[in-house]
Amino acid sequence: MAAHDPTKIGNEVWHKTGQGKYIGSAIYGASDGIITTFAVVAGVAGAGLSAAVVLILGLANLIGDGLSMAIGDFLSGRAERKYQKSEEERELWEIENHPEGEREEIRQIYKNKGLEGETLENLVAAITSNKSLWIHTMMTEELGIYIDEDSSPLKSAVVTFISFVVAGFMPLLAYVLSSHVPIFAANQFLAAVMITGITLFTVGAARVFVTGEKWYLGGLEMLVVGGISASAAYLIGFLLKGIAGAA
Amino acid sequence: MAAHDPTKIGNEVWHKTGQGKYIGSAIYGASDGIITTFAVVAGVAGAGLSAAVVLILGLANLIGDGLSMAIGDFLSGRAERKYQKSEEERELWEIENHPEGEREEIRQIYKNKGLEGETLENLVAAITSNKSLWIHTMMTEELGIYIDEDSSPLKSAVVTFISFVVAGFMPLLAYVLSSHVPIFAANQFLAAVMITGITLFTVGAARVFVTGEKWYLGGLEMLVVGGISASAAYLIGFLLKGIAGAA
Repeated sequence: MAAHDPTKIGNEVWHKTGQGKYIGSAIYGASDGIITTFAVVAGVAGAGLSAAVVLILGLANLIGDGLSMAIGDFLSGRAERKYQKSEEERELWEIENHPEGEREEIRQIYKNKGLEGETLENLVAAITSNKSLWIHTMMTEELGIYIDEDSSPLKSAVVTFISFVVAGFMPLLAYVLSSHVPIFAANQFLAAVMITGITLFTVGAARVFVTGEKWYLGGLEMLVVGGISASAAYLIGFLLKGIAGAA
Repeated sequence: MAAHDPTKIGNEVWHKTGQGKYIGSAIYGASDGIITTFAVVAGVAGAGLSAAVVLILGLANLIGDGLSMAIGDFLSGRAERKYQKSEEERELWEIENHPEGEREEIRQIYKNKGLEGETLENLVAAITSNKSLWIHTMMTEELGIYIDEDSSPLKSAVVTFISFVVAGFMPLLAYVLSSHVPIFAANQFLAAVMITGITLFTVGAARVFVTGEKWYLGGLEMLVVGGISASAAYLIGFLLKGIAGAA
């Protein structure tokens, strides 16, 4: 690398390694887990339902949503891999059966990017001299597919599930521990809000590892998003409280 | 395009247009909405809580989660755009201030892809002859960033929210309409399961527009994922039922 702003090197490292993908899955899973469970807790609190209902539905939602998210991640990761593979094979077939058409496509792509004359012809000759380079150039430039062979959809799904469940458990912690921790028992919902706030900020700040943004901005952003989501859930619970009373 | 399997042309069209991104957001939002609400409905049913609780928490969760998902989508889309922009500026700075180092990086990238000698030098000369091409080649090959200027993070967030809420309302439909539709009132949970099953299959099948997979496979996959998720939520609700009784 040429010398440049050293604080930016981190981004490239995360981008270049498979490891970075798992950190991304962990943070994505954790964010979703907290916000989903927090919305359940807030909805139940707004409706004035019992702490038992918080626990039952919080846990049911945590496992149900965590599973669907992890399975969904795995399946879409695998489908994407398969789709890329099939496009790769198709490009290979085209290059072998219609080399002139495909060479012309490469020429048009780089002509649109501003090359011309001998420079353009040299580049076209260079790219089409190597079948693998030719295929991958077509895939990237024509289809926007950039193949990443490094990360495993299964590992990524497991990481998503674990971080979803662990982080998503935080809004329930005050309810689970309230019989042992007097300060939680005094106002379970308030305790849950505080624990969740800290977790939201921490997970948001941890995004610095993936996005390179400032940690406190990431933390604040996550806190605001989680807050809006939970407030909406609380409000709806509160407004519909009458139905529960009537039931 | 050269002639090839015509059924595949569709994929390219979706990939190439901004429109395709919104269809992707709609399907992604709808999938998440149904599964999340269905998990709440199943958890409540498993715990034997009232239909009023299903409605209150289902709606609270629907709006809370829908908002957080849409806001999260918007913010991450915007952050990604900003990150790409900053990387673009950084590459420009490097090219202007350390052209030799950056030219050598281009050389190494294509050397690793199998080019050598005069072919390699011609390609390096062609790419570095055009600043914009040089920058974007560095970004794609070095950082794995492929810029898509077409889609708007705000529009995508709005599409996500609407599809999340509309599809996510389906598992609640039988509960909302049960006072007007006798067949729903007879067994609300069973009616909800059937309506949700049909919605899950439909949304899964609609993924054919984005992924190009077979529609019935997409539908079945979604049905299985939603089924596993809801079964887990039902089971946990059922197992923890005792707590509610004790509360």
